Amino acid sequence: MTALNENPLTRTDPTELTDEEIFGAHEGGKLSIAATASLADPRALSIAYTPGVARVSSAIADNPALAARYTWAHRLVAVVSDGTAVLGLGDIGPSASLPVMEGKAALFKTFGGLDSIPLVLNTTDVDEIVETLVRLRPSFGAVNLEDVSAPRCFELEAKLIEALDCPVMHDDQHGTAVVVLAALRGANTVLGKDIANQRVVVSGAGAAGIACAKILLAAGIGEVTIVDSRGVIHVGRDGLNPVKADIAERTNGSGLRGGIAEALRGADVFVGVSSSNVEEELIASMANDSIVFALSNPTPEVHPEIAGRHAAIVATGRSDFPNQINNVLAFPGIFRGALDVGARRITEGMKLAAAGAIAAVASDDLAADRIVPSALDPRVGPEVAAAVALAAKADGVA
Amino acid sequence: MTALNENPLTRTDPTELTDEEIFGAHEGGKLSIAATASLADPRALSIAYTPGVARVSSAIADNPALAARYTWAHRLVAVVSDGTAVLGLGDIGPSASLPVMEGKAALFKTFGGLDSIPLVLNTTDVDEIVETLVRLRPSFGAVNLEDVSAPRCFELEAKLIEALDCPVMHDDQHGTAVVVLAALRGANTVLGKDIANQRVVVSGAGAAGIACAKILLAAGIGEVTIVDSRGVIHVGRDGLNPVKADIAERTNGSGLRGGIAEALRGADVFVGVSSSNVEEELIASMANDSIVFALSNPTPEVHPEIAGRHAAIVATGRSDFPNQINNVLAFPGIFRGALDVGARRITEGMKLAAAGAIAAVASDDLAADRIVPSALDPRVGPEVAAAVALAAKADGVA
Repeated sequence: MTALNENPLTRTDPTELTDEEIFGAHEGGKLSIAATASLADPRALSIAYTPGVARVSSAIADNPALAARYTWAHRLVAVVSDGTAVLGLGDIGPSASLPVMEGKAALFKTFGGLDSIPLVLNTTDVDEIVETLVRLRPSFGAVNLEDVSAPRCFELEAKLIEALDCPVMHDDQHGTAVVVLAALRGANTVLGKDIANQRVVVSGAGAAGIACAKILLAAGIGEVTIVDSRGVIHVGRDGLNPVKADIAERTNGSGLRGGIAEALRGADVFVGVSSSNVEEELIASMANDSIVFALSNPTPEVHPEIAGRHAAIVATGRSDFPNQINNVLAFPGIFRGALDVGARRITEGMKLAAAGAIAAVASDDLAADRIVPSALDPRVGPEVAAAVALAAKADGVA
Repeated sequence: MTALNENPLTRTDPTELTDEEIFGAHEGGKLSIAATASLADPRALSIAYTPGVARVSSAIADNPALAARYTWAHRLVAVVSDGTAVLGLGDIGPSASLPVMEGKAALFKTFGGLDSIPLVLNTTDVDEIVETLVRLRPSFGAVNLEDVSAPRCFELEAKLIEALDCPVMHDDQHGTAVVVLAALRGANTVLGKDIANQRVVVSGAGAAGIACAKILLAAGIGEVTIVDSRGVIHVGRDGLNPVKADIAERTNGSGLRGGIAEALRGADVFVGVSSSNVEEELIASMANDSIVFALSNPTPEVHPEIAGRHAAIVATGRSDFPNQINNVLAFPGIFRGALDVGARRITEGMKLAAAGAIAAVASDDLAADRIVPSALDPRVGPEVAAAVALAAKADGVA
C-alpha cells in the first residue's frame, strides 16, 4: 500500500497535461489505413486489383464462407456510437465522440492486434441504429458499442445481438464488469476472502452499474445492492424502468432501504460507477478489510488516499494511482478471442473466462496495490483472447 | 506504335497469374488500421485516450468545425458499394464485392495518400442507401460510390449529392470519363487534331458510357453518338429510361439510326465501355487517323493488335498493353484535392481540371503509345489534387 501514501502530485497527474500536447496528439485524427497487399508494380496491381481480384470476388460469390478468409471483414470491429454518453461529458453528439472512438480503435490495434473502424451515427433512435448496422453487416465482423446512454444502451445491445449473427458487446457495460470481477478476484486472493460471503454495493445503475451487478451475481457473489440517484433499488420502488425493475428482482436480498449511507454500512465491497461523491465516514462504516473500487473518471467517488485510511484495498479508473480498473484489459482480448474462432455471439461464459484470464495474469505478482495487471501489460490481450476463444467453443457459439 | 507489334504474350498477361498467387495476396484481406498517436506508456495513453481525449471531444462539442481538424473523418473516404455491378462480374452482392473495395482503398492510400474504408451494403434500395449514409455522415469526409448498377447509380449519386454536404462521386462514371478525356487530349496532341471537329461513338450507356458522353460534351467535342445493346440512342426511341432520354437530347446531332456499324462508319473516335465485341471491319470503316479506346476488362471490345492495323492510336483498360486508361489516374487525386480544401461537392469544373492535369503530366513524354501517364506514375495524384483544389475554389465550393 506504499503507493497510496505517496503524494499523488509526484506521479503523472492528468491535470498536468497541457492543451498543447493533448491537441497536438489529436491533430488530424489518430488513425490511418495501410494496404497490406503490394501495389508497387503493374504485376502486383494486377494481382491485388483488376483483373486478379475478380477471381477472388467470384470465389466468394460462389461460396460466401470464403469472405471470412479473403476479406478484412472477419477481423474488423465496428466501434459504434451515437455520442449520447461520452466519457463524463454526456450527450455531446456523434462528431464530438469521434476522438474517443478513434482512441478506442487505436487501443484495439495496440492491445488486441485487431483492426477496427469508428462508425458514429447521426441518429439516437435504437431501431434506426439497428437497421443501419444490419445494412452494413457485410462490412465488419463484430460490433463494439460505445458511449450510448442508459437505459437505451440495454435495448440497443439486445436488439443488435438479436439482429446480427456476430459478436456484439457494449463495452461500457461488459468491459467494465469483466475487469471489476477480475479485480475483485485479485483483491479477495490478497485478503483471503470468498466472493460467496461478500456483500457488494454498486453505486450507479447505468450501463456499467447494471453490468457489474450482473457479472458479480453470475460469479456467485453473496449479495448485491445497487444504489442510484434515488437510493437503493428495491422491488416495488416507484418508477423503475424495465432494466432496473428486472435487476431489483435479483438484488438487495436483505431488503435494505435508504441511500448510499444505509447501503454501505457493513458492506464488504464498494463499486462506484456513478460520478457521485462518497464521504469518508461512509467508507469508514464498511466492514473490516473492505474493498473500494472508486471508478469514476477523472474524479473518483472518494479520493484513494482517503479511502485507503479505512479500506484494505482501493482501486480507481485512473492511471496515476495503483490498481487501475481499465476496460482496455478486457475488450481487445474479448473481441480478438471471439473473432479468432468465428464466434457468433459473446456469451456470459466468455465474459467470465475473460475475467479469469485477467485475474490469472495478475496472480503472478499479486499485492494489495497490484490486484490487476497494468493496462499496458502486453500479456493480457493474448491471454484473454485464448480464454475467450476456448469459452466460445465450450458454449457452442463457435 | 512498336509495342502493338510485339507478341502480347511476351508481356505480363493477366492470364498468367496463378490462383495461388492471387488468393495468397488476398488472404486475410488487404487493409490494416494503424494508430498514429502513441499509446506506448501511461502518459501517452492519458493524452490519446482518457482523460486527455475528453478535452478534444469537449472542444468539438463547443465548436463543431474543429472536427475537421481533430478527427480523421475530414480526410476519410467511404468506399461504398451494394455489389450490383462488380467489375465484369455483375450483381455478385456486397460481401463478394469487398475484395474490390479493399483494393480501391489500397489505391486511395498508395496514389492519393488518403485513408478510406469500404462500406458494403446489404440493400440495393437507393433510398435506404442514402438514408444509411446520411446517418453515418459524421464518420467520413467523402463518398466514393463503386460498382453500383445502372441506371440506379445515376439516381443514387444524385440523391447522395443532394443529401450530403461533402464530395460524392461514382467513380465508374466520372473516374473513367476523366481519364478518357485526358487520353483523348493526349491522342489529339499526337495527331494534331481538334476535339471540336471530332465525332465520337460511345459503345455502352451504363455508368461509364453516359459519363464519358457528358464530359466529352462539356469539353466541347463535335458530336457524340451513343450505342447501347439496342443500337444508336436517339430522341424518340421507344423505351428509353430517363437517363437515356436525357442524353438523347444532347447527342447524335446527325440523326444516325441503326447499330454500331452505322455509328462507326466515318467516326473519328471509338470509346468502348460495353463488354461487347467490335469486328475489325467496323474499325476499318472509321475515319483516317482514327482513335480507338477499347476499355472493357479483361477482354477489350477489339484486340489492340487488330485495332492497330487501322487506327492511329489505340488504348485499352489493361496494364499489359500501352495506353492503359485506368481510373486510378483520376480518383485518388480528385478526392484528395477536394478534401484538401474542404470542398462541399465535386463540380464539373473539378472533373475537367483533373483531366487537364492528367493530360499535362502525359505531355512531358507524349507519343502514340504514351497518350496517358502510367497508372503507377507518382506525379499524377499530386498534380490532379492540386488542379482539383484550385478548381474547387474557382467554382466556389471550397
